[in-house]
Amino acid sequence: MNKNSNFYPVILAGGRGTRFWPLSRRKRAKQLLALDGKQTMIQQTVRRLLPLAPAKRLWIITNEDLRPAILKQLPKLEKTQVLAEPVGRNTAPAVGLAAFLLLRENPDAVIGMFPSDHVIGDENRYRETLRQGIEIAAAGQNIVVLGIRPNRPETGYGYIEAGSALPDGSLRVRRFTEKPDANQAAEFVAAGNYFWNSGMFLWSARTLADALREHLPKTALLLEEIASAFGTRKFTAVFRKLYPKCENISVDYAVLEPRSAKGEQAGNIFCLPADFGWNDLGSWTALHEHSVARSNPQEGNLVAGSGTFLLNARGNYVHAPGKFVAAVGVSELVVVDTPDALLITNRQHAQDVGKVVKYLDEKKLHKLT
Amino acid sequence: MNKNSNFYPVILAGGRGTRFWPLSRRKRAKQLLALDGKQTMIQQTVRRLLPLAPAKRLWIITNEDLRPAILKQLPKLEKTQVLAEPVGRNTAPAVGLAAFLLLRENPDAVIGMFPSDHVIGDENRYRETLRQGIEIAAAGQNIVVLGIRPNRPETGYGYIEAGSALPDGSLRVRRFTEKPDANQAAEFVAAGNYFWNSGMFLWSARTLADALREHLPKTALLLEEIASAFGTRKFTAVFRKLYPKCENISVDYAVLEPRSAKGEQAGNIFCLPADFGWNDLGSWTALHEHSVARSNPQEGNLVAGSGTFLLNARGNYVHAPGKFVAAVGVSELVVVDTPDALLITNRQHAQDVGKVVKYLDEKKLHKLT
Repeated sequence: MNKNSNFYPVILAGGRGTRFWPLSRRKRAKQLLALDGKQTMIQQTVRRLLPLAPAKRLWIITNEDLRPAILKQLPKLEKTQVLAEPVGRNTAPAVGLAAFLLLRENPDAVIGMFPSDHVIGDENRYRETLRQGIEIAAAGQNIVVLGIRPNRPETGYGYIEAGSALPDGSLRVRRFTEKPDANQAAEFVAAGNYFWNSGMFLWSARTLADALREHLPKTALLLEEIASAFGTRKFTAVFRKLYPKCENISVDYAVLEPRSAKGEQAGNIFCLPADFGWNDLGSWTALHEHSVARSNPQEGNLVAGSGTFLLNARGNYVHAPGKFVAAVGVSELVVVDTPDALLITNRQHAQDVGKVVKYLDEKKLHKLT
Repeated sequence: MNKNSNFYPVILAGGRGTRFWPLSRRKRAKQLLALDGKQTMIQQTVRRLLPLAPAKRLWIITNEDLRPAILKQLPKLEKTQVLAEPVGRNTAPAVGLAAFLLLRENPDAVIGMFPSDHVIGDENRYRETLRQGIEIAAAGQNIVVLGIRPNRPETGYGYIEAGSALPDGSLRVRRFTEKPDANQAAEFVAAGNYFWNSGMFLWSARTLADALREHLPKTALLLEEIASAFGTRKFTAVFRKLYPKCENISVDYAVLEPRSAKGEQAGNIFCLPADFGWNDLGSWTALHEHSVARSNPQEGNLVAGSGTFLLNARGNYVHAPGKFVAAVGVSELVVVDTPDALLITNRQHAQDVGKVVKYLDEKKLHKLT
């Protein structure tokens, strides 16, 4: 039996991606946008995984706002494969529910947890890494995390401190670290044994279920009860009633940090260095830099429009589909034009775009969010 | 008889105003836009003049592209009052044609030549100045030019060098100067007896006709022939055939400069200092500054949109009607959004917007011009 036949990708697609406003909206979040290429981020995520698991073994966990669009974008999936959380409860309940559901279907299930809005440069290498991770996760109570080699002292990510190396190239995990400050981040990068936490994990459904029973016992009980209703008429009602009672906590914080505190040997957590050109496209600036690296346009200008005139313009990102765009004497700007909203910022301030959405939420301007 | 009953305003409205692209287009030039207030520039021009001359005495000279929109914006005017040049031939033939037409109607006609796309802050004072100018122009072979006191060493305007002052406050004109370089302009401003040429002139139809016969004899003959066909069936054909043969020259260059070369006394040209808050709104930047001076908005941001969120934004001009505009961390930008084109520039480069139109003309992208 091929080990992969037990592999079930669980794609988390409940995020809002407010930093891509005004393109991203409640019903059209970042993962539903074609930010990088013709396919949307979630379509790319699914396409990358299909060589490892047939479509029927995929699970997607999202919310009510996004579910209809996801089903439309992924016509090969059954409706039952796309679960909409009644409320967001972070990653522990989401992937935990998948674990309890899969345990009922296949006691040897190996779960891969995947964000739905990242880009991967080398997809073959990505799948090679996953195959290795699936093997490690399938063998006993191991947890595998894909770690990204840091190339800058990024303060927006969690870090993994790696310990001793194994012959297969994986590393024992010593510690998970929350987002560091700038000094800490610089130390981590200099140290050489720190990795960015990619949010991609592999573990057997049993290992994850056991970990949840240990670390989040009340939530684990609720999730088991929801899972036992799956496939019955009352599932939606049970899901809606019980899921909001689950703890609102990430799987990193709930399971991985306590496990890593047990020490390298007892923790059984392994980091697989991921050298496949990962990028989480965290902002318009990150998208700009990613796209410039790929296409190397003149003067670093990336303009999506029906035509362009650029004069003394450098390093701009303009999204204005169907429009002629003229940029004269401007640099490093980010301008995104949609039928009802116009964003004007620059690469230095693109991190603050989420604040626009916060404002719109506060003012209840729901049409714009 | 009131002197004003001989006064005929001739409004020149054939300009294209490319520096207001993408709002200004071939069929919707600057003078047809409501850049400052609810009325369009040409509507404001007419409204300002109506207390001095009834609508039936107004003449508008424009081109075929703009004539339909002008007639729509000015429903009180008869179609015959709005002449469309078959081709643009600058101001000498345009105002010259008006002179020959008016001579046939009223031998004592006094013509006022007015650009159609300027703003005037103090309209009462404007009309007072004009009343004074009309008197001077009606008395003999005088030419009156309205001069603007310079408040900066502007290199984009022509200058008038004034000589001796008369008791009524007017000044004899010593010389007309083409657009100066920066050093010259600074000298002019420092000297104190230089004025910007406003493009507003007053003279009797007879004086202007005589001047044209003297300085542009061939063009004068052509214009007389066109004028003699006015009101007949063959007018349009004659206009289309003869007008293109006229010299392509400004009235300043054709008449005023040669006249001023005759010397202060012989030239009979008088400058009326115009202190009525004149602004030619020469670019988006000029419009921004004019509007900021009037409304004093927070942080100097002027945003036309359906809503705004401004964070660390200063001195921006954004035109995006119907859209929510978010500006984050940007300063001194000019962004103009229309259904088919998006302009992104800054206040320093707004003078270069005409180059976009030049490019579009060259590429024959007529839909965008």
